[in-house]
Amino acid sequence: MQDKSEVILKLNKLKSVSGSHSPSIETLKQLIPEIEIEIDACFLSNPYATDFFMSCLEDELIKTGKLREILEFYPPQNRDVAEYVSSLIQLPTNQIFIGNGAIEIIQAVLHNFVSKKLLIVLPTFSSYYEFIKEDCEVVYYQLKKENDFILDVDDFLNFVKTNEPDSVVLINPNNPNGGFFDKKTVVKILDNCPEVGSFIIDESFIHFAIENNDLINESAQDLSKRYENLIVIKSMSKDFGIAGIRAGYAIMRSERVNYLLKNGYLWNVSGLSAYFFRKYSEPDFQRTYEILRRKYIAETRQFMLELEMIKPNIKVYPSKGNFVIIELLNGITSRFFTMNLLLNHNIYVRDCSDKVGLDGEFVRVASRSFDENRKIIDAIRIVQNL
Amino acid sequence: MQDKSEVILKLNKLKSVSGSHSPSIETLKQLIPEIEIEIDACFLSNPYATDFFMSCLEDELIKTGKLREILEFYPPQNRDVAEYVSSLIQLPTNQIFIGNGAIEIIQAVLHNFVSKKLLIVLPTFSSYYEFIKEDCEVVYYQLKKENDFILDVDDFLNFVKTNEPDSVVLINPNNPNGGFFDKKTVVKILDNCPEVGSFIIDESFIHFAIENNDLINESAQDLSKRYENLIVIKSMSKDFGIAGIRAGYAIMRSERVNYLLKNGYLWNVSGLSAYFFRKYSEPDFQRTYEILRRKYIAETRQFMLELEMIKPNIKVYPSKGNFVIIELLNGITSRFFTMNLLLNHNIYVRDCSDKVGLDGEFVRVASRSFDENRKIIDAIRIVQNL
Repeated sequence: MQDKSEVILKLNKLKSVSGSHSPSIETLKQLIPEIEIEIDACFLSNPYATDFFMSCLEDELIKTGKLREILEFYPPQNRDVAEYVSSLIQLPTNQIFIGNGAIEIIQAVLHNFVSKKLLIVLPTFSSYYEFIKEDCEVVYYQLKKENDFILDVDDFLNFVKTNEPDSVVLINPNNPNGGFFDKKTVVKILDNCPEVGSFIIDESFIHFAIENNDLINESAQDLSKRYENLIVIKSMSKDFGIAGIRAGYAIMRSERVNYLLKNGYLWNVSGLSAYFFRKYSEPDFQRTYEILRRKYIAETRQFMLELEMIKPNIKVYPSKGNFVIIELLNGITSRFFTMNLLLNHNIYVRDCSDKVGLDGEFVRVASRSFDENRKIIDAIRIVQNL
Repeated sequence: MQDKSEVILKLNKLKSVSGSHSPSIETLKQLIPEIEIEIDACFLSNPYATDFFMSCLEDELIKTGKLREILEFYPPQNRDVAEYVSSLIQLPTNQIFIGNGAIEIIQAVLHNFVSKKLLIVLPTFSSYYEFIKEDCEVVYYQLKKENDFILDVDDFLNFVKTNEPDSVVLINPNNPNGGFFDKKTVVKILDNCPEVGSFIIDESFIHFAIENNDLINESAQDLSKRYENLIVIKSMSKDFGIAGIRAGYAIMRSERVNYLLKNGYLWNVSGLSAYFFRKYSEPDFQRTYEILRRKYIAETRQFMLELEMIKPNIKVYPSKGNFVIIELLNGITSRFFTMNLLLNHNIYVRDCSDKVGLDGEFVRVASRSFDENRKIIDAIRIVQNL
């Protein structure tokens, strides 16, 4: 690359107009064609599942020419797609709402089922406070750095009791740090929060937290039978690396699903998203996916262990997501670290300097394929020593 | 087909759960596999434009393997996609809102920019009254059958004055009948409605109404510079037959676009929809599309003339859309007519018996390819005589 300072200027400008999210790879490449990204470690997904889904799509839609039907005609309506999910997770269709990505569900829930006071745990996924209604108050519960950003459940429950929010959001595992609590803890929390009208649990990363076969039972989804206030939000972009397709779903009580469908969301699921959910519900597809999911988890754990061994200039925080936050301890900034990885090693990681509730110099690094993870580790080993 | 009565029962059941829209082809085929649909004349699109877009997609995304990037990574944000549209229609990006299909825009506009009283012209696209907020009153202006459902502008303006709605919807050409008024009439209407807070003009079918080259100038879109209350909604599913991709946009004043984006719609445009809008903005693509658009209009006009000649059992109403409504005059019901076309001729048309404001026995028939139109005419000639 000829002139890095010019690229840095362009990147700074781009970031300033992209809001609180990283610019997409497509936007990046289009606006700064001279940039080379070999590894996108901003992007939180299981690349093996993407390979697998793309091979299904290749065989079933592209080779057969059926892709045209999927793109040409109106997609099935929300409820028809919910049938697919229902058959997989064994919950009634009328409790399932399909979203154009989880982000659409977050918006729908914040605008329809959150009243006056929302409790959010920091650090968090910024859309949860960015998309609230104008007249909604937000109270923040800060995860403690000295506690490695792990949720202290009793302290948290006290905070809820004191603040009396009508709605609460918990992300499990949390984004951006990956802190996780198990289903027993979820039950304890829900048992202690009957006054909360909407208890939102975002499980977008739970496929990476549970190593055994029993993913569906260890999710909070089936607790919706017991807790009327529970709303579970699930992105599929992370598990399958299909962020461009826009697929997510939520579990909530049936009156709430009805209310949303009465107000819109008629054809919010694209043809390809409907195709994805159909495949996802097929037992054969599930079997192969389970193998790839656990392979990726095993590699992710190993990746994190190796990152932890790079001492003493960086600290790796505990995570059950498919990513870690890394604190830079030797005085270099997260901006310098991120730019250096990008311009000298062609690796794109998330600079967390704009993350509210994450004070210090932090970056977030996603686990990618086995080979890519090797390169990420080698590059970080070099950059943290500069 | 062995037992038609059983298929009819299944169809009746399916229609009763599909609400006020036809069940999608995919849903139909999945639930009633024995049904054969050779021609989908429910579906309102230019099939030549679909051929063309699919050939671009084949060359640029499938043959090159780039489809994976489009599906895997996060799509560009709303504003980045608005740039493409801006370059085409010569209006500022900050006045353009991209939707996950026009239906998402209709929902957004009804929930955010319509206050207490909405005026809707009947017959209409049902989502305009189905998705209104609970506390919103709707007043209906009925198009007169004896006037061939053509808008009487002065009578309509009087109705607006008398009823004082804060918001008005006009579809131009109207769905389901195809009635059209030109830009001079739009200007006259807007000039006389300064008190209407949101004047919504849905131009989803305007590509079929204007035969000459100057489509962009004859659209109401650029009137948004003069009329702050104007909201123009545009589906792309009709022009390009890409309903499965979900692509639409709206023009409105920039404060309104800002307000929507502040409240969500971050990644509501899928990777393929973003790709579509990028292609759509390219001059080469536009040149070819213009040729196919006019070819399709010419064939559509011919199709309508031939339908009109099938007398005296049916009446074809005037339309500038890519569809016509047909009234059945010889005592057979629209249900009988539709079923007969489907089961004996494998042609799927829209039974309008559930269309509010369309009293009598009506069906809506879309213009398809030249060869398909021949078959539709032959079949209708037979069925209207039964």
